Amino acid sequence: MSRIRPLSGFPELTPEGRVVEQAVLDRLRETFELHGFASIETRAVEPLERLAKQGEIDKEVYAVSRLHAEPGSSAELGLHFDLTVPLARYVLEHAHALAFPFRRFQIQPAWRGERPQEGRYREFTQADIDIVNVDRLAAHHDIELPLVTLEALERLHVDLGLPPVLMRVNNRLLAQGFYLGLEIADPPAVLRQVDKLDKIGPDRVVELLVDDVGVSEAQAQACVRLAEISSADGSFGDAVRRLGVSHPQLDEGIALLTDLVTTAARHVPGRLVADLKIARGLDYYTGTVYETELVGFASMGSISSGGRYDSLASDGRTTYPGVGLSIGVTRLLAPLIGAGRLSATRPVPTVVLVAVESEETRTEAIAVAALLRGRGIACEVAPAADKFGKQIRYADRRGIPFVWFSRPEGGEVKDLRSGDQHSADPEAWLPPEEDRRPQVRWNP
Amino acid sequence: MSRIRPLSGFPELTPEGRVVEQAVLDRLRETFELHGFASIETRAVEPLERLAKQGEIDKEVYAVSRLHAEPGSSAELGLHFDLTVPLARYVLEHAHALAFPFRRFQIQPAWRGERPQEGRYREFTQADIDIVNVDRLAAHHDIELPLVTLEALERLHVDLGLPPVLMRVNNRLLAQGFYLGLEIADPPAVLRQVDKLDKIGPDRVVELLVDDVGVSEAQAQACVRLAEISSADGSFGDAVRRLGVSHPQLDEGIALLTDLVTTAARHVPGRLVADLKIARGLDYYTGTVYETELVGFASMGSISSGGRYDSLASDGRTTYPGVGLSIGVTRLLAPLIGAGRLSATRPVPTVVLVAVESEETRTEAIAVAALLRGRGIACEVAPAADKFGKQIRYADRRGIPFVWFSRPEGGEVKDLRSGDQHSADPEAWLPPEEDRRPQVRWNP
Repeated sequence: MSRIRPLSGFPELTPEGRVVEQAVLDRLRETFELHGFASIETRAVEPLERLAKQGEIDKEVYAVSRLHAEPGSSAELGLHFDLTVPLARYVLEHAHALAFPFRRFQIQPAWRGERPQEGRYREFTQADIDIVNVDRLAAHHDIELPLVTLEALERLHVDLGLPPVLMRVNNRLLAQGFYLGLEIADPPAVLRQVDKLDKIGPDRVVELLVDDVGVSEAQAQACVRLAEISSADGSFGDAVRRLGVSHPQLDEGIALLTDLVTTAARHVPGRLVADLKIARGLDYYTGTVYETELVGFASMGSISSGGRYDSLASDGRTTYPGVGLSIGVTRLLAPLIGAGRLSATRPVPTVVLVAVESEETRTEAIAVAALLRGRGIACEVAPAADKFGKQIRYADRRGIPFVWFSRPEGGEVKDLRSGDQHSADPEAWLPPEEDRRPQVRWNP
Repeated sequence: MSRIRPLSGFPELTPEGRVVEQAVLDRLRETFELHGFASIETRAVEPLERLAKQGEIDKEVYAVSRLHAEPGSSAELGLHFDLTVPLARYVLEHAHALAFPFRRFQIQPAWRGERPQEGRYREFTQADIDIVNVDRLAAHHDIELPLVTLEALERLHVDLGLPPVLMRVNNRLLAQGFYLGLEIADPPAVLRQVDKLDKIGPDRVVELLVDDVGVSEAQAQACVRLAEISSADGSFGDAVRRLGVSHPQLDEGIALLTDLVTTAARHVPGRLVADLKIARGLDYYTGTVYETELVGFASMGSISSGGRYDSLASDGRTTYPGVGLSIGVTRLLAPLIGAGRLSATRPVPTVVLVAVESEETRTEAIAVAALLRGRGIACEVAPAADKFGKQIRYADRRGIPFVWFSRPEGGEVKDLRSGDQHSADPEAWLPPEEDRRPQVRWNP
């Protein structure tokens, strides 16, 4: 067999890295369930036509075909590139079995056949929550979703030591109403330029708006000033109004965003700001949009994004509006684990290694292990009846904190960190709570 | 968009079915972790050359390629069809980061591009445990693995009401030693015929052995009599010896299998038998082999299979022997959920729906929900301030057991099953333990 090299863009975790990922996923799931989101999983593949965006199938889609398919037959399936397209199809296919509003979370990989480059993944895990309804979806869900997401991310901060996050939100109605109030004919064209603000600066955006979109210098200046507004409270609304533009959609957008920002300031203070430059795929979203940075790691890009779609799915008769947020689990964790920022106290679940004195007494060691497991303590029995020193080194190499010895006079347990050894009853002994599972560590 | 039809061979669960699957997966994971198995996940794709068996790439492999790949370029990647090939590659690629013996579990989908037929899946979830070592792997792991698997399957029986299982085990050394003792030149050819015993009966197998393999009538009869031996204790060994054949490999095989059967009889009585007709891919495995039926559902086929490979992986210098067992999660659950045998008490995690009297008081309902969640109680706030009757029907349709009302004089909680309603403090009220999570039900 040929020498093994990693496949670029397909990150794979060591067991220790997986402990970190699992601790993160457990907390996301727990938070989503506490908020009444049901778990679903969708198949990995969709018909290619469903993966098309506006009739165009993206180059990044991975096509899937039977290897020995009939010659001339073309691929009909592709791997999903996000969890939103599968959700839309799942809602249409299973609508009869769902109760609406449908609240679901979904934690699965997605695939993009990109050319490999730093920070881009061809396979990556996402954790999505969405609320989907029939015909209309109440605006308060636009507030609920980011609060749930921020609660989940806050647990990663508090429990696991990850940095806190900052979510930036905007509303398409606000920007669109503003442009319409300025009598600009093509709001999406303006948005596409304004989206470059951080990259190219305000002067260049004004130039592009004048030269390419064909708005006046004054209109362009107003658009840029709007995009420069942000606030962690409702004051952004006053700043917008001071620009002297008015339109019903603008008022609606300000009201919705004010509601979101003020509610968030109460529930998750310091974690959410209105930021009117956020444009985030506005071709796609139709209302609130979200993106999220890990504080101090802005170069990682947005680790959680989403927004509202007034038509997530439609079967021609019924329209399903939705609002959703996606946490990029791989995008968040792979660089932090790779750089050693996140680690685990051990790569195995094992709390106790039960030593084996001789192969003849393995059965007794197995019995001790069974007693410990009966009380939820993860154990392994030593794989070989080596000298105890070697068995202790076996445990030590894995970070297993305790070794159990069966003596004629009873059990003894040794804490490998302190070296303490004392007699213990396998039907009563308990490890300290923090040793029960591997702990995740943030290494500054 | 075209009408949505399910994709044949890609089973997808409703939220209720997913509750069942998640309850199963949680118990498998917990059991594996209690036994010190570390979790890993591997990428979905492998280079096609790695998916080849004995140089031949199976027709059932799904090839993966970038949709707009350069014309003329051929697919180089395929979706893995099991979790063993990825494990072998993972061990070789990450050997430097692993401690051996390496104990891992892996719960992931696999894909086979089969023509669709009843009971065959193109996408299916497996839950595998394996122990892999360098150079040599002790025989006691051949006993440990089925005991861990049976313990996991027993939890599904005891906790979730699934039927009990019966694991059938054999050892390649035993059959091969027996054939060599009979001076049969081509043991694998005999095994391939004996494997058909259940399907075509002993007389036809004897015929095939004589006609196609070229052994004598007496040799053929002895092979069939060996295959007909089974026992839940060590007595199979005496039955084999009564056939009057001797060979060192036969003795070794009997000893190993006796050890396994007698240990299992002590730890998991009634769940494991030696069954000498089990041939199970003996080209592949080199020692103990396992297969498992769900009692009363034999037509579902084996729901958990595996065995020992003396060379799971090799990089030319180092050989990695392994022993593993795989639980076919989809194969086990999809038919039982589909037939309504397994169901859940509700399709959502929600324990309490917090009713909303008017949109003006939504904030108070959110505050009550936050207090309940703080003590681990999953809640949703009602999506609309409808009449209470409608809000109660919303909860009822989802099987949510409790509805919370905020009254000026304090909270009240209504049990929708009994109709009881009484005052309750959101900082103190607890639901009955069995209502905390959806329960899985077996429907006979």
